[in-house]
Formats: sequence, structure tokens, C-alpha cells
Amino acid sequence: MTIKDIAKACGVGVSTVSRVLNNKPDVSEAVRIKVLDFVEKSGYIPNNSARDLVKRSSDSIGVIVRGMGNLFFSSILKTISTEIDKNGYTMVVHFIDSGEDEVKAGAVLEREKKLRGLIFLGGRYDYSPEEVALIGVPYVCCSYSNSFGTVKEENYSSVSVDDYQTAYKAVKYLIDSGHRRIAALVPACCDRSVSQLRFNGYKAALKDSGINFDEALVMETGGHYGLNEAYEGTMALAERGAEFTALFTVSDSTAIAAMKALEERGIRVPEDCSVIAIDGLNVSQYVSPTLTTMVQPADEMGRECVRILADILEGRGKNRHVRVETALRDGASVKSI
Amino acid sequence: MTIKDIAKACGVGVSTVSRVLNNKPDVSEAVRIKVLDFVEKSGYIPNNSARDLVKRSSDSIGVIVRGMGNLFFSSILKTISTEIDKNGYTMVVHFIDSGEDEVKAGAVLEREKKLRGLIFLGGRYDYSPEEVALIGVPYVCCSYSNSFGTVKEENYSSVSVDDYQTAYKAVKYLIDSGHRRIAALVPACCDRSVSQLRFNGYKAALKDSGINFDEALVMETGGHYGLNEAYEGTMALAERGAEFTALFTVSDSTAIAAMKALEERGIRVPEDCSVIAIDGLNVSQYVSPTLTTMVQPADEMGRECVRILADILEGRGKNRHVRVETALRDGASVKSI
Repeated sequence: MTIKDIAKACGVGVSTVSRVLNNKPDVSEAVRIKVLDFVEKSGYIPNNSARDLVKRSSDSIGVIVRGMGNLFFSSILKTISTEIDKNGYTMVVHFIDSGEDEVKAGAVLEREKKLRGLIFLGGRYDYSPEEVALIGVPYVCCSYSNSFGTVKEENYSSVSVDDYQTAYKAVKYLIDSGHRRIAALVPACCDRSVSQLRFNGYKAALKDSGINFDEALVMETGGHYGLNEAYEGTMALAERGAEFTALFTVSDSTAIAAMKALEERGIRVPEDCSVIAIDGLNVSQYVSPTLTTMVQPADEMGRECVRILADILEGRGKNRHVRVETALRDGASVKSI
Repeated sequence: MTIKDIAKACGVGVSTVSRVLNNKPDVSEAVRIKVLDFVEKSGYIPNNSARDLVKRSSDSIGVIVRGMGNLFFSSILKTISTEIDKNGYTMVVHFIDSGEDEVKAGAVLEREKKLRGLIFLGGRYDYSPEEVALIGVPYVCCSYSNSFGTVKEENYSSVSVDDYQTAYKAVKYLIDSGHRRIAALVPACCDRSVSQLRFNGYKAALKDSGINFDEALVMETGGHYGLNEAYEGTMALAERGAEFTALFTVSDSTAIAAMKALEERGIRVPEDCSVIAIDGLNVSQYVSPTLTTMVQPADEMGRECVRILADILEGRGKNRHVRVETALRDGASVKSI
């Protein structure tokens, strides 16, 4: 059945049917009801609005934001929202703390809101097939992939940077600038997640340059990405007494808090200690000193996530995994020695 | 009619009706259709899910975020989201640039998503009744009120700080610290919006302390709250040559960019120039120097907005206007002279 058949059966014009199905004004209520009733009975699925009525489902894509303290996520969320709009879906956002379980939150949201798909903005890297069986719709992992997990590649999608390589490049940049005593501020070394991958990249860069790994230079801040944890962690690192001339951090916001702590300990950045991060927030260009950081392409990542999901929902594509590139944005927080 | 009546009429158990109405699995499609058809015909409104079906409307509350560059909004958005969840509604977010028209965007979203209510996170202060007639659902202005407009108080709701008084207090704090040459960095002096109110508070504080207003100390950055505009504006202010010992800014993020510009011009904060702002972002505690700022209670504001809207939607209340208090958070960016 086509839109023409509906128009004929209801005794109205094609444009009127289109207006009704797209929920546009300037259609009498009587005609609107007539068309919708016919569509509902006929099972015709022309687009989202009608599909909602017929299937009694929705046109909603859920976005689970894990840890809004992470300023990188708020920049990417706007792009995801705009792209979901453009593709004719409705975005339903749900914020959870970085300690909460995004898979469960997604599964609950899926049932409550009758979602068509899910985007996880931040999450763990170690999903099992049993765990993700809770999720009954296509989903995209945004800013991470399932590196430590056992879910088959064809059963989920992801858009991410290469965390290991990005960290490797950041630390290599410090080494190329003459640093050999390089500390690392990480949420957790073995979280089977972003933090572990970036920590591994740090260690590999040291090793490839013949620098011995020194545990005394590693500070774990406790799993989250809070500014306060990063500040306290850097304070503790400085108090420990092990000397370092550079600090690698896993995110811009933790780097900002770390620079604050260093300053308060009388350690000048970059004169006494260089600092490098990963993210590329806008605000990092305005802190003092300007943060040197590996920029993740937030806009591109947001666009790709929605494109993948729309392709799957509209039968144009299957699950896929997109790796995006990071690029160094030079600031004033790294000094050659 | 109760859920028992529905069960009886459909010849099924109460728990089955409940499962259908809450969109739970384990109900045959035949029974599901039977129950839903009966509910639809009977006009029974047991909860959100069924209400959606019966009214062909939704349980959605739209949130129009105007200018995501404003980091204050991203902190408030999480609270709004959590509160909307708690109250059993669905949040639909739409981001617009700070130059766009939030009323039109809200009206479009209302039609497209069949909203029950709207929260405007940021907006103009000069709505006319004709303009807001586009909006057919209750709405709350979050972080602003209609000070320059002609909409009657009983026809809309708002949760806001007293912009004029907050700016007055901030500037008075600078004056009490010995400053008399106080510059102002504002998006626009006469935007009939937040910027104008805060600028008026600045002027009033000067006047009440017998300090002549000097146009040469005012820099308009062009209507938006972008970091780059604030940076460029401060650069231009410094280049203008008029001397000042303190700078009043209307937001934390513009203050951060302003401090960067001052630093690059060789003007030390606070030794050569004190800086004060309004917002109270978390990150402002970690920039260097720590920003002295008037804290807006973001969590309280988000909670109040949703409470007002839920009260109206559920017949417990009418439109109302909530004024929340700001409090000075002392940093290191203001020096007594």
C-alpha cells in the first residue's frame, strides 16, 4: 500500500495524508482521525509518526550519559541531539553517575520509553553477551569499544578513538620533548576500560623508549573523572616525593584540576612540570597555561554514532565500528627540557 | 472505571491489564490489542503509557537549551533530567544556539513531540503575549524571567536569580575591596535580557558608591557568551587604554576567557586586575587563580522548574515565579587594594 492508496481510501488528497502523517497543522480534526484510523487498521508504516501509532512504539533514541562531570560528554551531546533531530528521531537522555551501570540503565530506559535504539555516551569496555542480552535494540558505544569484553563485533556498534595509541602518542610527545620521569594520573590502572587502555599506552611508550616503568610515578584516583579526585590525587602524588618532570593525564578536566594542585604545591607548569591530556575541550584553550592535549573529534563522533544507528534502523546498514583520529593541539603546558 | 473493570470487560486478569498498560512482555499480541482497544475506547487514564495511547499525546517534557557553550546550562541540565525522570515524565532535549529563537523552537518541538510542557533553559526577557501564543502547553523559564516583556505573571512560570541584585552585589564586593575603576565585560548592554539586567546592576552599584560611570570601561562582546568573544573583547578592552583595577563579567566561562586575555596582555590577576563573575561552575574552582564568583544554585533551580511544571500538569498548582538566592564564593581572583 502506498500513500496514494490511503488518500484514495479516505477520499482526501495525497498532500493531506502527508500532512496528517507528519503531524503538520491545517488539517481538520475529522480528517486527521479518519486518516489515522485507516492507517492504524491497514498496518501501513510510512514514517515515524505513523509507525508510532501503528506499533504503539516510539521514534525515540535513548542516550545514556555516564558521568556528566566529564565535560567532553556535554560537548558531544549537543551534536548527537542535532543529528538525532535531523534524522527524524526523538532523543531521550538519561544521565547516570560514572559509577553506575549503563547497560542496566539503558535496558530500563528502553522498556520505559519504548526506544528504537540506544547510544551509550561513555561506558565500560568489558560487556559479556549475557549482560547485553538485556538490551533489545541496536546500540552504539560512543567514545569507547568493547576491548576487554566478549560481545561479538557484529552484535554492537562503536565510535571511538584508539585509546592505547592516543595515550602512546601523548607520552611519546613528552619523551620527544626530553622527559624521562613521566608521572601518570589515571582513574584506575586495571578498570578494564578507557583508563586501563590509556595506562597501557603510557607504559608502552615508556618501554619503547627504553624508560623503566616506575610504580611510584603512577597515581590512581579511584575510578571516576571528578575534578576533585584529580586534584587530591595530584596532591598525593606530589607529597609522595618521587620526582617527575612531566605528568600524563587521561582527560582535559582532570588535567585542569591537576595543574591547580601542582601550582598550589609550588610546582610551576610547565617550568617545573609539563602536563599533557586527552580530550581537547574548548575551555582548555583558555586555562593558564593553555593545555596541550590530544583532541578527540567530538562532532565527528556524535555524527557517526547517529549515522550508524539510523542506518541500522532504516535497513541501510549493519553494526559497524568506526575509529576516529586524534590530533595533538599544542598549548603551553609542555616544555622541552 | 478502575483497572479491575478493564480486566473484567476484557476477560483477563488484573495483572495482565497492568502488564499491557506498562508495556511489559509476556502478554500475547491478541490480548494486548484487546486491552488497548478497550482502554482507548473507554477513555481510561491510568498512567503515562496509557495516557499516551488514549490521547495520542505523550508524557514528554521538552527542554530547549539555548547556547550549550554556556557551561552553567550543562550542569543544570542533569538535574532537570533526573527530576523529570523522578516525576514520571520523559525529557526531550533540543539544543539551539544562543542567537536562535527559543519560543519558536519550543513551539515546533511541542507540535512534533506532542509535549505536555516546556522548560526553556535560557532565553530572552521580553516576550509578548502574541509571541508566546505559539506555545500551547505550560512552560517554565529557567534561569531568567520576563522582566522586559508584557506577558502576564499568571500566564507563565520562572525560576531565576535576581540578575540586577546579583550583579549589584558582585560589583559592591569589588568596591568594598577598594576598587573604583571597575570595567564591565557584557554580551550586550541593551539586549532586554540577562546581560542588560546585570549591566544595570553594575551601574547602580557604582552610582550608589558615588563612582561615575565611564563608558570607556564597558566592553560589549556581541550578544553571545562564547569563550572566544569574551577573550577578544577583553583584548580590545585592554588595548583601548582606559585604566581599570577590576573587571566585572556576567558569567564564569567568559571570566575564564577574560583572565586568559589579561594574562596574555601582561596584566596579572589579581595583582594588576581583580576579576569577579556570576555562575559558580565547578571548574572555576580549578582555574588559576581560583575565580571569585556569585554562585547560582543550579540544582535547586533545576528541581524547582520541574516541580512547578509537574504541579501544573497534575493539577496541584498554577503558574508561579521562584526567586533563588546567589551566594559569593570567594576565590583568589579579587584583591583588596
